[in-house]
Amino acid sequence: MSQPSPLAPEKFPNLPAVPGVEISGLHVGLKPTKGVKDLMMARLARGTTIAGVFTQSKCPSAPVDWCRSVIGQGSARALIVNSGNANAFTGNAGDIVVSETVRAAAKLLKCPKREVFVASTGVIGVPVPPDYIAGKLPRMVKALKPKPWLNAAESIMTTDTFPKGAARKVRIGDAEVSLVGVTKGSGMIAPDMATMLCFVFTDAKIPARVLQTAIKAAANKSYNCITVDSDTSTSDTVLMCATGKGARHEPVVTATDSHFREFRRALDDLMIDLATQVVRDGEGAQKLITIDVTGAQSAQSAKRIGLSIANSPLVKTAVAGEDANWGRIVMAVGKAGEPADRDRLSISMGGVPITENGIVREDYVEAPVAEHMKGQAIHIGVDIGLGRGKARVWTCDLTHGYITINADYRS
Amino acid sequence: MSQPSPLAPEKFPNLPAVPGVEISGLHVGLKPTKGVKDLMMARLARGTTIAGVFTQSKCPSAPVDWCRSVIGQGSARALIVNSGNANAFTGNAGDIVVSETVRAAAKLLKCPKREVFVASTGVIGVPVPPDYIAGKLPRMVKALKPKPWLNAAESIMTTDTFPKGAARKVRIGDAEVSLVGVTKGSGMIAPDMATMLCFVFTDAKIPARVLQTAIKAAANKSYNCITVDSDTSTSDTVLMCATGKGARHEPVVTATDSHFREFRRALDDLMIDLATQVVRDGEGAQKLITIDVTGAQSAQSAKRIGLSIANSPLVKTAVAGEDANWGRIVMAVGKAGEPADRDRLSISMGGVPITENGIVREDYVEAPVAEHMKGQAIHIGVDIGLGRGKARVWTCDLTHGYITINADYRS
Repeated sequence: MSQPSPLAPEKFPNLPAVPGVEISGLHVGLKPTKGVKDLMMARLARGTTIAGVFTQSKCPSAPVDWCRSVIGQGSARALIVNSGNANAFTGNAGDIVVSETVRAAAKLLKCPKREVFVASTGVIGVPVPPDYIAGKLPRMVKALKPKPWLNAAESIMTTDTFPKGAARKVRIGDAEVSLVGVTKGSGMIAPDMATMLCFVFTDAKIPARVLQTAIKAAANKSYNCITVDSDTSTSDTVLMCATGKGARHEPVVTATDSHFREFRRALDDLMIDLATQVVRDGEGAQKLITIDVTGAQSAQSAKRIGLSIANSPLVKTAVAGEDANWGRIVMAVGKAGEPADRDRLSISMGGVPITENGIVREDYVEAPVAEHMKGQAIHIGVDIGLGRGKARVWTCDLTHGYITINADYRS
Repeated sequence: MSQPSPLAPEKFPNLPAVPGVEISGLHVGLKPTKGVKDLMMARLARGTTIAGVFTQSKCPSAPVDWCRSVIGQGSARALIVNSGNANAFTGNAGDIVVSETVRAAAKLLKCPKREVFVASTGVIGVPVPPDYIAGKLPRMVKALKPKPWLNAAESIMTTDTFPKGAARKVRIGDAEVSLVGVTKGSGMIAPDMATMLCFVFTDAKIPARVLQTAIKAAANKSYNCITVDSDTSTSDTVLMCATGKGARHEPVVTATDSHFREFRRALDDLMIDLATQVVRDGEGAQKLITIDVTGAQSAQSAKRIGLSIANSPLVKTAVAGEDANWGRIVMAVGKAGEPADRDRLSISMGGVPITENGIVREDYVEAPVAEHMKGQAIHIGVDIGLGRGKARVWTCDLTHGYITINADYRS
């Protein structure tokens, strides 16, 4: 593992146990370096509900195909996630790895195969022996414990430079429940899920249908609002499991229940925390960039404009160079293809208004903005001046580090 | 000017005069370095027809707005192009620069204002004095001559490392006519907010309506098939002028006239030559990448898939690292959003088949592909296996040079 990103948190947080969830993370030999963890397992209590969102790639991996085919029934007993091999573009061999893994897990845990979920991340196009992961499951089951979240987070890392996790405590009615999530990703990151995996667990009791609404909405505000390099992976997977084994709470019947509102806010917040950890580990990242777009014709239009800015190599290299180059932001707004009028556009950086009504302000002084650009947290504000649509997206800068990491990855 | 790109042609070609076209290129002080040319003018014979295509940016520059508003009438007498200042995002001041320039040129050449076309490239957001360019036009007119194409090509350069031009001779019926073009661009956008500009001249006699069909089709096969960094400038402009002052030829009435076919083929070929010169000067480029997509559901679908591959930072860094990383090509096909089936996908590099039917071929040996990756001209072939749609696109690799040019640039 290389040096942790300069944007990494000081340490991995202390994550609580989630009643109904046991986890393990071990080295089983999928990654070449001995001791580097590469397989994660979660055992889920009977009655656990599950929901998820997956990559929009038209060439998804075999594990994504499997999860999509079984998630509709909404219950889960096991989650098996490997790193070191994406099991993508492996043809029929890839499907066999999945079915062998699922069969073995179902047998060990005495559950239907449709309650076993799998995800893989790593090299594309290299098949693993069909029963390789299946054969490691007895060891994984033996290692299951309520709290080794760090092991779990480490075992799903690829080019990540730090393990990623977060937790929230939240009330449903009078009862307190937990939310814990682990995630990975540091390149091939773009909206609609990029090489990123995210697993969220709660001990609340939530019907699968409601869970699906909540996780999809949360992903739209978090993982679908981040981009490192505009590349979308074959394997992106966000899964959320609700065990119902925590404190008893007022039943949740619909996603809009008023006593469920606080939970959803906490879930959104947790997902944004996890998603921005992925951006903080963006390959080569030196700066975290937050982009607020306001005044667009709609929220969707605002998001598209935000992502056009966030995906622009010229904006990202300017930030890397600590250059308050607002001209490149104008360019990126223009290329988004969304309604915009250059004569209404206002741009700020670090909260300092730079342009107004399509021209640089007469009172603009660059010094405070130049100072802001030297920091690690960069803010770009763009007001389109047309409507009330707004969105916030996150990205990182584009540096020599990105080139070094990606020009030399396989060798 | 920095070192010429390693992909630059050995020298600027010897371009012939085009009857009906006189040109000049001079230093007038828009660029800071004395002697570095920054203004180009073309005087066109009475009766010259014109057609063009422009940036899709929603925040286009003032010159693009002007050209769009007058090109419909189809005749041209003058073309004035400056570098050193993009006259983009300059509000009302930008419009005034354009109208002053156009007014002065119309007066000097005794033509209607609507026959004067302008383009600008350079720094964004910095207004020039309204009559600055207008005041230089008498000098420009005095310098007009039939053949200083190199001056013209040099005077539109920004971060380009070499001047770009090309010519073809072609027959319409029994008569031989000329095509000459100059272009600039070195990234869709460069540090100075550069742009792609392309100006093509012919002495053939072609109605404006037919010219529009021909240039639009040629741009779609050339300039619209190249990408350096996926960024779209506010100022992209392709203009084609036909003076009708060459050898008399059979009249061209429609774009599909059979005796016009050879001309259109030559125009396509010229435009591809010019467009790939732009890619060869892509910021930091070390390798020219040609991507052929076949077997897509339609030509448009093939082009979208091709551009998805060409815009992928992960594919481009892999090529920079001389890594035959076909897994990233699968990823880029998947993210294009176009119909694709991973189990029908075939990929080749340097003409060597690597995958077939969604899996790596059993007989695949990496050595010859690794050898190909060391060269300057990289070929990627992708067959989608679904239909008959095909497209060819070009890009360059993504190197440390791109980051250095765009991040380390700071005045």
